[in-house]
Amino acid sequence: MTIETASAASHAAPDLVERQTVTLFDESQPLTLASGRTIGPITVAYQTYGELSPQRDNAIFVCHALTGDAHVAGRHHPDDRKYGWWDGFVGPGKPLDTNRYFVICANVLGGCQGTTGPMSINPETGTPWGPDFPFITVSDIVKVHQALVDHLGIERLLAVIGGSLGGMQVLEWAARYPDNLASAIVLAAGAKLNAQGIAFNAVGRRAIYADPAFKSGRYYGDEHLPRFGLALARMIAHITYLSEQSIEMKFGRKLQHSDELTYDLLKETEFQIESYLHYQGKQFVERFDANSYLLVTRAMDYFDLVESYGPLANSLGKTDARFLVVAYTTDWLFPTPQSREIVRALMEARKHVSFAELDSPYGHDAFLIDSELPMLARLVTPFLETTYRSIGDR
Amino acid sequence: MTIETASAASHAAPDLVERQTVTLFDESQPLTLASGRTIGPITVAYQTYGELSPQRDNAIFVCHALTGDAHVAGRHHPDDRKYGWWDGFVGPGKPLDTNRYFVICANVLGGCQGTTGPMSINPETGTPWGPDFPFITVSDIVKVHQALVDHLGIERLLAVIGGSLGGMQVLEWAARYPDNLASAIVLAAGAKLNAQGIAFNAVGRRAIYADPAFKSGRYYGDEHLPRFGLALARMIAHITYLSEQSIEMKFGRKLQHSDELTYDLLKETEFQIESYLHYQGKQFVERFDANSYLLVTRAMDYFDLVESYGPLANSLGKTDARFLVVAYTTDWLFPTPQSREIVRALMEARKHVSFAELDSPYGHDAFLIDSELPMLARLVTPFLETTYRSIGDR
Repeated sequence: MTIETASAASHAAPDLVERQTVTLFDESQPLTLASGRTIGPITVAYQTYGELSPQRDNAIFVCHALTGDAHVAGRHHPDDRKYGWWDGFVGPGKPLDTNRYFVICANVLGGCQGTTGPMSINPETGTPWGPDFPFITVSDIVKVHQALVDHLGIERLLAVIGGSLGGMQVLEWAARYPDNLASAIVLAAGAKLNAQGIAFNAVGRRAIYADPAFKSGRYYGDEHLPRFGLALARMIAHITYLSEQSIEMKFGRKLQHSDELTYDLLKETEFQIESYLHYQGKQFVERFDANSYLLVTRAMDYFDLVESYGPLANSLGKTDARFLVVAYTTDWLFPTPQSREIVRALMEARKHVSFAELDSPYGHDAFLIDSELPMLARLVTPFLETTYRSIGDR
Repeated sequence: MTIETASAASHAAPDLVERQTVTLFDESQPLTLASGRTIGPITVAYQTYGELSPQRDNAIFVCHALTGDAHVAGRHHPDDRKYGWWDGFVGPGKPLDTNRYFVICANVLGGCQGTTGPMSINPETGTPWGPDFPFITVSDIVKVHQALVDHLGIERLLAVIGGSLGGMQVLEWAARYPDNLASAIVLAAGAKLNAQGIAFNAVGRRAIYADPAFKSGRYYGDEHLPRFGLALARMIAHITYLSEQSIEMKFGRKLQHSDELTYDLLKETEFQIESYLHYQGKQFVERFDANSYLLVTRAMDYFDLVESYGPLANSLGKTDARFLVVAYTTDWLFPTPQSREIVRALMEARKHVSFAELDSPYGHDAFLIDSELPMLARLVTPFLETTYRSIGDR
């Protein structure tokens, strides 16, 4: 209830935010990627909310999921009808309370919403990178985020938080920069993507590769973009973000246009669930780039903390960050055992870790769904307060 | 153990079987489909095993799943390396014991393995039906199967058995022809397809529609068939036939060609699971037709026993058939609650029903997997024996 009121209040208040950019890793000091290739300069698109404290100890970095962006909360223009993707969670009086904390969110490397990615100009050719953009990993993404945090003059983050691919970034951050964060909040994620997750990403990518308009990734400027393939990839993935329960509750076998079955094989959106998936696909291609989609899904496939750093208890044992790990009962993309594996390793390493499996019908996407945020807030709000207090004591 | 021995023995013994065909529903008496359209004549491809008893009371009809065919067991030629799709379950000394029972299996209407379907010649045009083939439902499929049973001179089947779409056919049979079966064995199925199942079928079909070689279904005789779209549809579906556990056990994150990650976005089969799915897709397009795939998946989407016949306790309450309903713990396409719903309705209707949830890591496909058959046999063998004995008493 508190949260809903706060949310309503903040929408009435000025909530405008600007997307900022900064150029990091200039040509003389390019970023060396996990693949061995280098890239630089890198433009990073990011947004900040609230004020950095004089002690620079109240900064929270939000890592977005697969197809998110820096626009985590608020609006860019007063006419915008849509708020940022986590507006219910980030803002004045909200769990990531911008009256207290300085919140940062940046678009990932390889993305398509402002940070250098396949749509950016390749300085060597003067044309967009397209499929020549280097392969990126979660570790590359986090290196760029850390460089942004350095640029902002923040030595140690109060928290790094993220769900799904965002949660993978949080884990990577804790392993790679153990001294740079006071807490880590991992939502609906795991220390690696399992085979089923790789399988779904693979069929989605295959839909893109198969689209004649994809043309091996060299489609920028074309009249026809690989929208069909990208939409299909999104439709497949979207099924995995929902739970059987939620999809059944919301759609079941309801028909879209009529009370009667049509017995028409060409009718692709006869059931509501079909129409909903088509809509999701259509919306997605308006805001996302196929080359970026290939890159970020592959980064997710490649993520494996044990493969990169050895046993979890070792890699996560290097940080003194306090951990909060959250799983959702109906999340089948990152089922609860994946969270438990992280929790066990942290306990084995004698680290502070809180764990909750939240009961939600909404599957993997639960951490993004407004109705489910109060439940998450009841964990995150006190966790952040305690972390903030513990820093003050130090 | 018994089963394995029996199986080995039968492979040594003559196990050759011939595909037979019969033409039913001639032009003067065509089949009226659920859609209202009519079709006739209909050729049905079927195979039989064992001998029909003089009392004609030992016939078991096997309903195949989505992409199965009449070739349920044995071989067509001594040189065949592959046996029928349920060879571990059907044969002398096996659970569907062809020394005792007369087993029938027929390719479904709309299929592509001998029974009239989109690849057959449309008598009105003299060319293949293709996309003009009428829309079919599970009820249409069962009407044709029943006509075949009539043709074989069998008044009452000892059992109808099937898994997945085959299980839907069993339920339809019991509701539509309550007096024509003494028992019904429903494996890994439900009284309807849930929204998640419809969703997966929908994205699979969309992959086919999107293949430029599909050409609205008019591709017969073309150099390029819509293999890419059909393979992708199969790959998507195949993920749903496995469980997270089995896929993780078998493949996990193992690489296909090397011990080293390649950091190459064009490498589509870097992980073993990717390579496995590609193989599944490739194998499938060798044996299946895209137009048929569209038809049978839509038939599955449309299946809803309650929608067709009213409350389950009423529709299933009309038969005196003994029921055996089997679910698998890791089947997420037809999760156990779907089986329980059938069992509850049968109990409410005071019918004989046995129910088991079998513990298997193999997901939806468990009923087809050799290692899981002995577990199923321990239910089916005595169930059939008791049913057969109860008929004798009558």
